[in-house]
Amino acid sequence: MRSVLLFAAVALLSILSTAQLPSLMPQPANLKPGSGQLVINQFFTVAITGHKEPRLERTVQIFLADLRKQTGMLPLDVSVVTMPTASLTIHCIAGTKEVQELGEDESYRLEITSSGAKLDAQTTLGVIRGLQTFLQLVQTGSTGFVVPAVSIQDAPRFPWRGLMIDVSRHFMPVEVLKRNLDGMAAVKMNVLHWHLSDNQGFRVESKEFPRLYELGSDKLFYLQDEIRDVIAYARERGIRVVPEFDMPGHASAWFVGYPELASGPGPYQIERHWGIFDPAMDPTRESTYKFLDEFIGEMAKLFPDQFFHIGGDEVNGKEWDANPKIQEFKRAHSLRSNEDLQAYFNKHVQTIVAKHGKTMLGWDEILRPELPKDIVIQSWRGPESLAQAAKQGYRGLLSHGYYLDLMWSTQRHYLNEPISGDATTLTPEQQKLILGGEACMWAEFVSPENIDSRIWPRNAVIAERLWSPQNVTDVQSMYQRMEVIGHRLDWLGLTHNSGYAPMLRRIAGTDDISATQTLADALEPVKDYSREKLALEPPTSATPLDRLIDAARPESEIVRKFTSNVDDFLGGNRNPGVEAEIRRQLGVWHTNHAALQPLFGNSFLLQEVQAVSQNLSRISAAGLAALEYIDQGQPAPTDWLSQQLTLLADAQKPQAQLLLVVAPAIEKLIRAASLQK
Amino acid sequence: MRSVLLFAAVALLSILSTAQLPSLMPQPANLKPGSGQLVINQFFTVAITGHKEPRLERTVQIFLADLRKQTGMLPLDVSVVTMPTASLTIHCIAGTKEVQELGEDESYRLEITSSGAKLDAQTTLGVIRGLQTFLQLVQTGSTGFVVPAVSIQDAPRFPWRGLMIDVSRHFMPVEVLKRNLDGMAAVKMNVLHWHLSDNQGFRVESKEFPRLYELGSDKLFYLQDEIRDVIAYARERGIRVVPEFDMPGHASAWFVGYPELASGPGPYQIERHWGIFDPAMDPTRESTYKFLDEFIGEMAKLFPDQFFHIGGDEVNGKEWDANPKIQEFKRAHSLRSNEDLQAYFNKHVQTIVAKHGKTMLGWDEILRPELPKDIVIQSWRGPESLAQAAKQGYRGLLSHGYYLDLMWSTQRHYLNEPISGDATTLTPEQQKLILGGEACMWAEFVSPENIDSRIWPRNAVIAERLWSPQNVTDVQSMYQRMEVIGHRLDWLGLTHNSGYAPMLRRIAGTDDISATQTLADALEPVKDYSREKLALEPPTSATPLDRLIDAARPESEIVRKFTSNVDDFLGGNRNPGVEAEIRRQLGVWHTNHAALQPLFGNSFLLQEVQAVSQNLSRISAAGLAALEYIDQGQPAPTDWLSQQLTLLADAQKPQAQLLLVVAPAIEKLIRAASLQK
Repeated sequence: MRSVLLFAAVALLSILSTAQLPSLMPQPANLKPGSGQLVINQFFTVAITGHKEPRLERTVQIFLADLRKQTGMLPLDVSVVTMPTASLTIHCIAGTKEVQELGEDESYRLEITSSGAKLDAQTTLGVIRGLQTFLQLVQTGSTGFVVPAVSIQDAPRFPWRGLMIDVSRHFMPVEVLKRNLDGMAAVKMNVLHWHLSDNQGFRVESKEFPRLYELGSDKLFYLQDEIRDVIAYARERGIRVVPEFDMPGHASAWFVGYPELASGPGPYQIERHWGIFDPAMDPTRESTYKFLDEFIGEMAKLFPDQFFHIGGDEVNGKEWDANPKIQEFKRAHSLRSNEDLQAYFNKHVQTIVAKHGKTMLGWDEILRPELPKDIVIQSWRGPESLAQAAKQGYRGLLSHGYYLDLMWSTQRHYLNEPISGDATTLTPEQQKLILGGEACMWAEFVSPENIDSRIWPRNAVIAERLWSPQNVTDVQSMYQRMEVIGHRLDWLGLTHNSGYAPMLRRIAGTDDISATQTLADALEPVKDYSREKLALEPPTSATPLDRLIDAARPESEIVRKFTSNVDDFLGGNRNPGVEAEIRRQLGVWHTNHAALQPLFGNSFLLQEVQAVSQNLSRISAAGLAALEYIDQGQPAPTDWLSQQLTLLADAQKPQAQLLLVVAPAIEKLIRAASLQK
Repeated sequence: MRSVLLFAAVALLSILSTAQLPSLMPQPANLKPGSGQLVINQFFTVAITGHKEPRLERTVQIFLADLRKQTGMLPLDVSVVTMPTASLTIHCIAGTKEVQELGEDESYRLEITSSGAKLDAQTTLGVIRGLQTFLQLVQTGSTGFVVPAVSIQDAPRFPWRGLMIDVSRHFMPVEVLKRNLDGMAAVKMNVLHWHLSDNQGFRVESKEFPRLYELGSDKLFYLQDEIRDVIAYARERGIRVVPEFDMPGHASAWFVGYPELASGPGPYQIERHWGIFDPAMDPTRESTYKFLDEFIGEMAKLFPDQFFHIGGDEVNGKEWDANPKIQEFKRAHSLRSNEDLQAYFNKHVQTIVAKHGKTMLGWDEILRPELPKDIVIQSWRGPESLAQAAKQGYRGLLSHGYYLDLMWSTQRHYLNEPISGDATTLTPEQQKLILGGEACMWAEFVSPENIDSRIWPRNAVIAERLWSPQNVTDVQSMYQRMEVIGHRLDWLGLTHNSGYAPMLRRIAGTDDISATQTLADALEPVKDYSREKLALEPPTSATPLDRLIDAARPESEIVRKFTSNVDDFLGGNRNPGVEAEIRRQLGVWHTNHAALQPLFGNSFLLQEVQAVSQNLSRISAAGLAALEYIDQGQPAPTDWLSQQLTLLADAQKPQAQLLLVVAPAIEKLIRAASLQK
């Protein structure tokens, strides 16, 4: 059955573009355009037939509120009607579980004609997904807001499609989480993985162990009522909330209030730097497990989800090595390595987690045969460990390749396929153990101000990877649709677009940000872990996040389009429009340094980008010169070429931890100029 | 003493501009620039000396949070220190009242040198005001964020500086109120007047009379807990919350659940249209006063402020005239007119309000000698009634001239002086009875999406009128400073800037809004009450607010600058830069209609502005032609002139309830062209 659906999806992709269907993301599994369109006006009504539950009515209210935000219409009657002539009829067969479960049916069927829309689903969860598709279909039309006639049959490829948000390294207030939950719902993600504790902060109120947050959070933590509020908010949007309490490493913040948990002599401080640190829980003491039993017991009640994430990553073992009692314990229990010791710890913790009715989840380091087969492995180190886990019968999630903090291109995330590499050799049974994946937003270099711009819109394409059929991989279509969806997320209050100008105004030190934005638009933050490596002094939690690197987008849309134009032009498209656009853009960049000049003296935040601004101007001049040679049909002189390549090599070095990502395209122009004949 | 301060303020205005002090709004009463600057970095600390109270500590926390939003710095230690070397030392002499009172001391003195800042105030309220001045002084500098050395002594001119928000005609969620309270605090306003009931909706949960909100609100109302939350939020920002329950007219929504309160036979519906309607409370029945006694008793506990607004405006008397029993009552009580009958009602209500410990406030219709002198009159009909009230010993507030919904220019609001006209003939004692004023945001044509863009930034200049010395009236300085302050409000989450592009994208029906924005930037909504008058069909609560008129700004900054350039140019400034800028702008407008052309067919929201778009193009061509004549030094032919004037007259007619406000400046160019010699 799945292969039939896949075929249909492929066949329809081409129809999609001709039929001017709105951008959908994730792409539905099966879509057939109809003819005509349904008009949406202020008399829009929704009827519910079939199974009813309060959650379903609430779902419709949220949908109507979103529809209002999208259209600016304010229908008075927001109540759900029963009339057979409703604009949208929702038929739902069964209720949902009290606590949303992994693998609950999310499928739906949406039929839209010019006379009405019909949404059928097994459960309220499917209705939630289908209504998001409906919202993406609503567009401004010639006669009003319209939804094109279409027939969609849709279901997710993977049952676990998550976003992890680290609130330890930088605390994120509830409003940040809520608006991101809205964004997740819009792209049909269904798990918020909440990284709640780490060396840099313990973020949850604990009644049992109040010193955890009193001494471990800098007073930046969530009250239990706030946690419940976030979970309820997520639940209403069909999103599970999985808490993570990282242990036995990444736990310095616990030890500030409870040093007896640790393996070293203490005292401990909240960690201010980033990286891997020595403090680790003492896995040899009974008191550690007694503490964890009580703590996990408390948290298991607070977080209703079936899964409980214990972290388990990056234990360097130094505190264990330095503690004679722990060494003695290892010998006495024939634990040959620190990995063995951690496995011993994990097994005990797993027993506690299970005792409190939960299923344990951890980063790939926890994978050891001692653990029961119901645990889930989250792979951050690579797809191999996912395949390895599946072969041993363990379920797994892919996060390697989905780290949003690494500033990768959207395309790179998009093409990161869970069933790839070793996983392709798995049996179909084993492949089913790969539950999906999670995008990860580690928070060393994000604040409430710019976190949305790191998550969005890139997270939408990861959501598509995990929802849509495996063969939905057209990168050009992805970029086109992401651009549209990215703007639609503005209605939900996400700040990835609206926050840009205010950040640039701060950097420019003036309200006129045109030149500053031109520069910022041509730059990207350095990739992977280079930001920390290139820092003049080690960054800490107190390091301001207000520099150009904090405003610049992970992937520059303008540079991507410029590069595409250059490729097009050099590929033989000598359409004067393309060349004119390349020339116009190079001209803007070329003169921008002069335009920025008066601002450098007034802003310490601009001063560090003087060199990169000058480089942008210089290499743009080189690009313009290259166009001249090309237009004249004369090969550029060799010494000119080598000079320009030197210039470009220099310009491509990171400056202020920023990359002049326009350089490669200009290099292509320069090389092409020298090859003219 | 006041006159000395005023003199100082005038003298310093000129120094201000040379010293490159940041824009302040409202302008402080007394400001003396110093030399040097204080650097603000992540090690910024605040110390409190003198009187301490929890409210003061909370004030500092809010200040630090705002400072973080402005600078993007995330200091870890947000606790208030006691060290003598703090960056900012706050010295407060006395505590504040548990419930903020009218006339509490808001003065402060702020001394900033390169080594530190010192803020002195009588009360926490003064600290709140002084910290907002400090925040406005923070700017991006060459060595970091800096505050220039300055000495400020400041106090408000009027003790009542309010903003009224109507949440009845369109409901505004709590988040809308909170972000506007943040904005009010930033410009030192101190009263939120909350217009909570009207014909179109009763918005407060009442435990005594639940049908008020159950049947009168379309389920859009505030829970009492939400009310308390808003009041607490306002209190923390030094803002009083005055509730208004409009009676005996403007009360249809009450009668849906309690028709026995009304003077007509009923039944009643929530009113969907805008205007003045017949339903009015029955002032002749004892049961009406019994109801109001219980209701006001409940609300008097919910709203702690001393003042209680009973509305009292626009009773047309028709229901009274149609009710024989009421007519009989009037005769029996020698009430000669409906005004007499309303005065009878007001007197009873005033007794009830007083019984519950409150002071009555009402619109100017309530002014009658029967009422005690402690009531306050809010003038919406004109400054005369304010003077008239003061002469009779009544306190008053000016709102006439501050109606934000009328789409007036900023300048017009700014120059609307409370002590003007008849009020200038008042004795100093009588003048003191004029407590200040309130901007009014009536909500017929605003939604949560665009309300901020009607309130801000114009409300900031009303705040200045009510805070700063009377002679602070430089319009050019006002516009310059307002532009800066308007952008700074973005940090607080206000959406008057960030909401513009999303609205235009909806209207354009595409992500590329450049041409749509060029058009929108050249237009303003029609003024006063013309929107309703020009509507094709009567607007209702269900009328969508998503048209270009809903996105267009009340005053176009681009047109204002263009007009200023034209005046400059025609005034003799033949600086080629000025003329080039005029020409550039006209060129953009001229070609914009062609750029918009492809979009008209796809968007019903753009279709209605086709004609105005074409007019913009045409009159811009006329303006360009005029420039040619002027440059050639040849008078334009008379028939050309008359043709252009016809064109301009046509273009100045409202289209789609929008005004082509660029037309008058172009007309000046055209007339100048014909006068060339």
